[in-house]
Amino acid sequence: METVKIGLLGFGNVGTGVYKILKENGADISHRDGLDIKIEKILVRDVRKKRSIEVDENVLTDNVDDIVKNPEISIVAEFMGGTEPAREYILKALSNGKTVVTANKEVLAKHWPELEKAARAYGVGLYYEASVAGGIPVIKVMRESLQANNVYEIMGIINGTTNYILTKMSEEGRNFAEILADAQQRGYAEPDPTSDVEGFDAMYKLSILASIGFHARIHIDNIYREGISGITVEDINYGKELGFAVKLLAIAKKQGTSIEARVHPTFIPMDHPLASVRNSYNAIFVKGDAVGNLMLYGRGAGDLPTGSAIVSDIVTACQQKGRNLYSTFYNEDRISPEITMIEDWETEFFIRLTVKDEPGVLAKIAGIFGKHDVSIASVIQKDHNRGEVPLIFVTHKAKELSMGKAIEDIRRLDEVIKVENVIRVER
Amino acid sequence: METVKIGLLGFGNVGTGVYKILKENGADISHRDGLDIKIEKILVRDVRKKRSIEVDENVLTDNVDDIVKNPEISIVAEFMGGTEPAREYILKALSNGKTVVTANKEVLAKHWPELEKAARAYGVGLYYEASVAGGIPVIKVMRESLQANNVYEIMGIINGTTNYILTKMSEEGRNFAEILADAQQRGYAEPDPTSDVEGFDAMYKLSILASIGFHARIHIDNIYREGISGITVEDINYGKELGFAVKLLAIAKKQGTSIEARVHPTFIPMDHPLASVRNSYNAIFVKGDAVGNLMLYGRGAGDLPTGSAIVSDIVTACQQKGRNLYSTFYNEDRISPEITMIEDWETEFFIRLTVKDEPGVLAKIAGIFGKHDVSIASVIQKDHNRGEVPLIFVTHKAKELSMGKAIEDIRRLDEVIKVENVIRVER
Repeated sequence: METVKIGLLGFGNVGTGVYKILKENGADISHRDGLDIKIEKILVRDVRKKRSIEVDENVLTDNVDDIVKNPEISIVAEFMGGTEPAREYILKALSNGKTVVTANKEVLAKHWPELEKAARAYGVGLYYEASVAGGIPVIKVMRESLQANNVYEIMGIINGTTNYILTKMSEEGRNFAEILADAQQRGYAEPDPTSDVEGFDAMYKLSILASIGFHARIHIDNIYREGISGITVEDINYGKELGFAVKLLAIAKKQGTSIEARVHPTFIPMDHPLASVRNSYNAIFVKGDAVGNLMLYGRGAGDLPTGSAIVSDIVTACQQKGRNLYSTFYNEDRISPEITMIEDWETEFFIRLTVKDEPGVLAKIAGIFGKHDVSIASVIQKDHNRGEVPLIFVTHKAKELSMGKAIEDIRRLDEVIKVENVIRVER
Repeated sequence: METVKIGLLGFGNVGTGVYKILKENGADISHRDGLDIKIEKILVRDVRKKRSIEVDENVLTDNVDDIVKNPEISIVAEFMGGTEPAREYILKALSNGKTVVTANKEVLAKHWPELEKAARAYGVGLYYEASVAGGIPVIKVMRESLQANNVYEIMGIINGTTNYILTKMSEEGRNFAEILADAQQRGYAEPDPTSDVEGFDAMYKLSILASIGFHARIHIDNIYREGISGITVEDINYGKELGFAVKLLAIAKKQGTSIEARVHPTFIPMDHPLASVRNSYNAIFVKGDAVGNLMLYGRGAGDLPTGSAIVSDIVTACQQKGRNLYSTFYNEDRISPEITMIEDWETEFFIRLTVKDEPGVLAKIAGIFGKHDVSIASVIQKDHNRGEVPLIFVTHKAKELSMGKAIEDIRRLDEVIKVENVIRVER
């Protein structure tokens, strides 16, 4: 039996989950994997703070050096969130010969090459299964089960808060602000919901997923990002009529050496496996040239699911000791510098307008679409209302930038009262 | 760059898939994983047979010893199917110091301890990702991503043929025999469909999945098995009315040291993630005490998806060389011999009867259920037809054996024309 002493940086939600799991299932892990994992030290802000679970006071410390410089500790698990001081502490741990296991998507998305280089230089491991989609082992699957594949598409529901909000809007017909307030009250959404609602969290995660999947670093600066705060119940209802469900999707596609990466609200057909992912569940849909379509579904957050990924990484780190897998990014290593990030991708579009009830409006709008090479697949014109008419278009595949120009021109028409929404459609 | 020479036992569907993948993506695998995987020899029945893909004739052999005793070859991949001579060849390869990668669920389910012991004894690896659910990496996920968990439930759609048939029956309203004949003609079902249709294939796979998940060997003799040939369009339609989809599920549950394992047609609620798994797709739904609900979805068969799993195992075998993970079964190792297999499990039941249109029938049947401690959740009585009435019951959770006795008693009633079907319900 090998005893492995670990240190935890942070003792919030995830840290507590790890603590609970090792307490509850530690004996099973010892038995099955021959590992006695012992929490040696936990970094907290206030050692004296009253906690919901009972912890030996000697285990707690407010001095990070008690962990990152502790010769007893071989693995450091970090879940502080944010970039600083997380980055600094991780680098310190790595440079002191400790393998690092992290749940921190932001620090990884922003500082990956620096962290990866340090891990390589000091011959230790860097593990981050918990950084994307909580308990869903998508990182290991992409790295260690899809080696035979050229992965060319990733579509994920990787933010639970927004999926919860969109599910409730869709099923209960209540508007965004109301559901968000409700979610905040229940603790499902943060007091400042920006990172979730505006797609930053999903963007960090997509940066990690796509980099792993495509073996090319996809920097967050190259990811288009749009949140869900502009989605209305009207959009959702018209989408339903057309057979679509709305999801905040993180999408990355590769064709040859061209890559596109984007996070935005998306309509997908009701019979797409991602459409039935409800509430705060996450799912990642991957296409590989050998494996075909593959989807992983599960809990993307929470103390125990995320703790499950952290503890799995710890066990893996012990079993792979000295055989660390480092990530090879074609573009960072300048092996294949010709990779280009595409900004003018193609999707279908759902466009919802409110127009004046006058003859010739439809012809004018259709003319603008035609001018910009946007081909219309279907039109819905609904019940009049005080001279205003809702007008919905679904297009065939069109270029992003052409659509932008078409919408600009449409907005300038006197007959167009409002461009209510433009939502991309994926299949 | 390490060169790894491999031998293939079999060159049918899966073998061809492996060959194609290495030809197409071999350079990428070399680049990413530092491995040059070279197919040294392929065992075929007839070296001279005309093949759909072009292969160097020197690579083909009809003598197994050219592979299992070949000092150049370090990894042998087997996809012959069946128990003999697959078992013999695998043992020969292991005893000659070769790591074995297999897609053969039957040989593994039946002879696992023998194969595992040989691998341990000769210090080589035994890998079998491809044996369950084709391209879906469920074995690796269960072994290497859920270490923190006590897995207590597994429900899987792990036979593509039956899922295809049930999907078609459900969506097109055509009966079992018709769809099966159609599937056979298209090559989706075998000329002798027994192994798929009667649940043997799913039983082998469940034996492997449950053994890995519960760390206790679940022998096929301990798995209840019932196929889908008795399912009718009428059952499916009544199920729909009740909000259920029908699936051939492989189910294993653990409570303390009690384990139940069974393969049978099952009604599940329409909003269960497994309900939307259509056509020949597979999916495995796992519950763990830390990770919560986790589902993996993808292609359960086919040359490239299964080849994806085989090649992944080969890469993994090279990277883990000398660090083979062997399976620890509590019960095989007599560490925890108190594990008991439950035969009298509990489920809800859907019961469809045709009864005579006479007063008092319902009361008599309800009385029999009551006598056997079966509590009724809902009843549907439908349109009369020449004095015959369809009568459908859904029960609350009831014991399997009690239900068997109740059905026996009901069958004996003069008023009961036929017990049309009894289908278990899971949620």
